Amino acid sequence: MNEQEWINYLKKYLYQGEKVVAAHNEDCTVIKISKNKYFLYTTDALVEGIHFDLRFTDFYSLGHKLAVANLSDIAAMGGEPKWALLTLGSPKAPDKEWIDPFMKGLVTQLKKYKAHLVGGDTVKSPNFFFNLALTGETQAPLLRSTAKVGDIIFVSKPLGASAAFLRYIKDKPLEEIPAFLKKAYLRPTPEITLGKAIRKLANAVIDISDGLLLDLYRLCEASSVSAVIELEAIPIPKYVTLQEALSGGEDYALLFSVPQENLQELFKVCKRIKKSIYEIGRIQKGKPKIYLKNEEGALEEIGPSGFDHFTSQPEF
Amino acid sequence: MNEQEWINYLKKYLYQGEKVVAAHNEDCTVIKISKNKYFLYTTDALVEGIHFDLRFTDFYSLGHKLAVANLSDIAAMGGEPKWALLTLGSPKAPDKEWIDPFMKGLVTQLKKYKAHLVGGDTVKSPNFFFNLALTGETQAPLLRSTAKVGDIIFVSKPLGASAAFLRYIKDKPLEEIPAFLKKAYLRPTPEITLGKAIRKLANAVIDISDGLLLDLYRLCEASSVSAVIELEAIPIPKYVTLQEALSGGEDYALLFSVPQENLQELFKVCKRIKKSIYEIGRIQKGKPKIYLKNEEGALEEIGPSGFDHFTSQPEF
Repeated sequence: MNEQEWINYLKKYLYQGEKVVAAHNEDCTVIKISKNKYFLYTTDALVEGIHFDLRFTDFYSLGHKLAVANLSDIAAMGGEPKWALLTLGSPKAPDKEWIDPFMKGLVTQLKKYKAHLVGGDTVKSPNFFFNLALTGETQAPLLRSTAKVGDIIFVSKPLGASAAFLRYIKDKPLEEIPAFLKKAYLRPTPEITLGKAIRKLANAVIDISDGLLLDLYRLCEASSVSAVIELEAIPIPKYVTLQEALSGGEDYALLFSVPQENLQELFKVCKRIKKSIYEIGRIQKGKPKIYLKNEEGALEEIGPSGFDHFTSQPEF
Repeated sequence: MNEQEWINYLKKYLYQGEKVVAAHNEDCTVIKISKNKYFLYTTDALVEGIHFDLRFTDFYSLGHKLAVANLSDIAAMGGEPKWALLTLGSPKAPDKEWIDPFMKGLVTQLKKYKAHLVGGDTVKSPNFFFNLALTGETQAPLLRSTAKVGDIIFVSKPLGASAAFLRYIKDKPLEEIPAFLKKAYLRPTPEITLGKAIRKLANAVIDISDGLLLDLYRLCEASSVSAVIELEAIPIPKYVTLQEALSGGEDYALLFSVPQENLQELFKVCKRIKKSIYEIGRIQKGKPKIYLKNEEGALEEIGPSGFDHFTSQPEF
């Protein structure tokens, strides 16, 4: 089973009560508390050797990224993050040399978005692992399953920089890698402010953490729609390949669909919060498929993991 | 630094806002929501090779224990558990052979106490680890810091059986170990019902997870009192040594102190919920110290980890 089949398999063990608006296949668990109040709940772990490599990741960045991975899930629901618990697995007795930067990175990011670390657990472990559980709140959750035909698709950041960093680091020392790529990988920004701002404007939102194509496919599948994206419109920064922009991971960007009638308000809101967004395509009727439109206007169906001839995926 | 010094060190990174009633040095984080409503929040992890050994721990029991470790923290606050998130770290692609019993053990225990698994994260990891985050609610939290001089001290279970199991398993096959010890170690019971029942009767409560003496010492320290316990009154089951009862871990029992005037009501309540409890001593004025009274009535001060001549601790 791949990760998605696996999540589907585990679904049967999740509680399905009426208050539970979403318990899987969304970025957060969503539980209805009252008419205008929803409880958000998410957890994300970083495991040494799987999600990070201490040869080029400092502990401050690790704490920062752990916060962002979780904050980004809350952002995708249009939520405000609240309370965090940390589980800290460490092979040796904790040591101020790494614990202080780690905690500072974590707590600084949380505080920036008015979230607070309020407890946790420290355990011995053969390797480092860090788990955060984060709660949040929203008046009305944004879901990935509510895109409508005709919606315009946006992304909130240039894509692929994190994947490009992982390509560069294979044969370049850290100090020779462009600062923009380092920041994207080591100190990403969660879209909390944007998520809240589009709460009443977007029809559907998903956090891009596994690459544009895969996450757009998930949104289409959940909403029973298809999508056309324009090759030229995809925001690809310097140093980044098309493949990395389409299928790289760890962008922590929002991908969202907005109905035509809300566009004016959307642009106004984005101006107010000083946030650039990028229009990349449109939601269409049809089975969950993604079509790429090239410069000549020709459409090509594209699988969730990218062009067929893009076989090598960035990896450690 | 030992675990306690470590928790004290990490304290500076925890949020200390006025709503936060307890963020460390309690079994749960406690956050005040309104006058009669408190949010409880806890997390506990089980790591392969540290907290469990797959040679004698089946996956159903692992799921069961992960639930109980967290439920027991909620129980110690007099709370009702609510929502759980699971992080599942696994060295290989998940396999129904172990995931099904694990999930059944976890979900069955949670459901028994009206708690619900509502989401989580699956990650690759060099070794198995399981992390649960659990929320709860209570009208008024029971704390460990509010014991009063003159309170009677109770424990909710015979102690040390889990530690005795770990001694037996060193040189006996699982099937030759007394069922009572196996159950205590592999399928412990959380004291959710008792915790709720004593909410208005007990002055202070702590979950015994690191041994009677150490957890009683923590309660005394938090409450700025001392305690006298009667050697003969400590409930020691068959097969269990005195040392195991005093300093073994993983009892998942409640240790609580009740003022004299509530005793009658306490016994009535325990009869109603069919729960045996064991009176073991009394809270006294003085620095945080524990005195053991022997059969002749002589008092001996005893360190948090047990008699000086009890040097060997049960371990894997």
